[in-house]
Amino acid sequence: MEELRATERTRIRRMPKRGSYDRALINSIIDQALFCHVGFVHEGTPFVIPTLHVRVGDRIYVHGSAASRMLRTAAGGVPMCVTVTHIDGIVLARSAFHHSVNYRSAVILGVAEEVVGDAEKNRVLEALVNHVVPGRWSEARPPHPKELAATSVLGLPITEASAKVRPGGPVDDEEDYALPVWAGNIPIRLTAGAPIPDERLGPGVAISPSVAGYRLPGERGDRNGTSG
Amino acid sequence: MEELRATERTRIRRMPKRGSYDRALINSIIDQALFCHVGFVHEGTPFVIPTLHVRVGDRIYVHGSAASRMLRTAAGGVPMCVTVTHIDGIVLARSAFHHSVNYRSAVILGVAEEVVGDAEKNRVLEALVNHVVPGRWSEARPPHPKELAATSVLGLPITEASAKVRPGGPVDDEEDYALPVWAGNIPIRLTAGAPIPDERLGPGVAISPSVAGYRLPGERGDRNGTSG
Repeated sequence: MEELRATERTRIRRMPKRGSYDRALINSIIDQALFCHVGFVHEGTPFVIPTLHVRVGDRIYVHGSAASRMLRTAAGGVPMCVTVTHIDGIVLARSAFHHSVNYRSAVILGVAEEVVGDAEKNRVLEALVNHVVPGRWSEARPPHPKELAATSVLGLPITEASAKVRPGGPVDDEEDYALPVWAGNIPIRLTAGAPIPDERLGPGVAISPSVAGYRLPGERGDRNGTSG
Repeated sequence: MEELRATERTRIRRMPKRGSYDRALINSIIDQALFCHVGFVHEGTPFVIPTLHVRVGDRIYVHGSAASRMLRTAAGGVPMCVTVTHIDGIVLARSAFHHSVNYRSAVILGVAEEVVGDAEKNRVLEALVNHVVPGRWSEARPPHPKELAATSVLGLPITEASAKVRPGGPVDDEEDYALPVWAGNIPIRLTAGAPIPDERLGPGVAISPSVAGYRLPGERGDRNGTSG
């Protein structure tokens, strides 16, 4: 078990017993998520943008249009925060105050680096597509050089990071357990529905293996297409 | 249809056709979400924290421990960003480059104000609990004054805000439509499972109406317990 060093910025202050700096736990929270939220500061304003991600080894990568404000700002070497969140359940206590949610979240802080070179960019984009839909990369047309040039990829080292996990049922004040109020939790998860074919799908084009057997990142038992 | 004024900070630059400043659309994105991500800057570092929210009228509220860094920082009158995200589907194109996701997101910028006074705080917390689980507030024990004092509630006016929506199927380059690659989209949604009773649930305590008929915010046809 590798523990990351807690810093003044990542040390869990609220409910420290729920916090962790264990790399394997942080990695699993990242790997099981379909998307993340990226925070950055632009001219004094904090912005939070949802985006897809992938972890390769000890880095988390995001991508986007080379023209986007998020990518241009973050590629400029400014501090960035990537937050990955799973809401796993609604916790119903006997008191309104102790209502809560079950969650697993990871917060990664640092300065992102732009991925340069078509080969490396291509490698990360392959991991990204395969993180979202395992095996999809080899089914689709690969990027043209012009498409690669229009895409920015940023990598953030997972060195200053923390996880926070709240599992289980409600925790009520001792005197409230006698109240005749139903308590427990309602599990929540992201689910995928049946694939919808494109209107312009040619006749005789069969559903791809990656789509037919599709499982979301949180539903996979293994790493499926991302390395490390 | 009320249009919010686009500012230099909220104007949608990437894919402006997907952007909107329509208050009704922004409200519906907020109302149909279970949780949001709050961004704020603390000593130069951007932080992004997941949290529950509720909209009441033209404000979005978040709450937390009065001792939390997020609440203390944001209550100090610093700029804040609240981002609400629904990932609605994975879009599979014939080319790797045109893979995408369907989403609805809202970004609200501004300076939050702390809710003061127990009556007002109580009213917002009631709306918050009922946003997550409609009808739950009146089933549970109401907050003691000490519990209210330990809870901070922040309200952010929904004045500087934008929405972005990407629906539908893939958009491929014209020459790629002839490729024998399956294309379409996989719908994604948050779902709730069967309620799990607390281990310490007393015998004879029946499941509450709010739990028995539980539907997530995105599955409700009406506003269910939040006003405006």
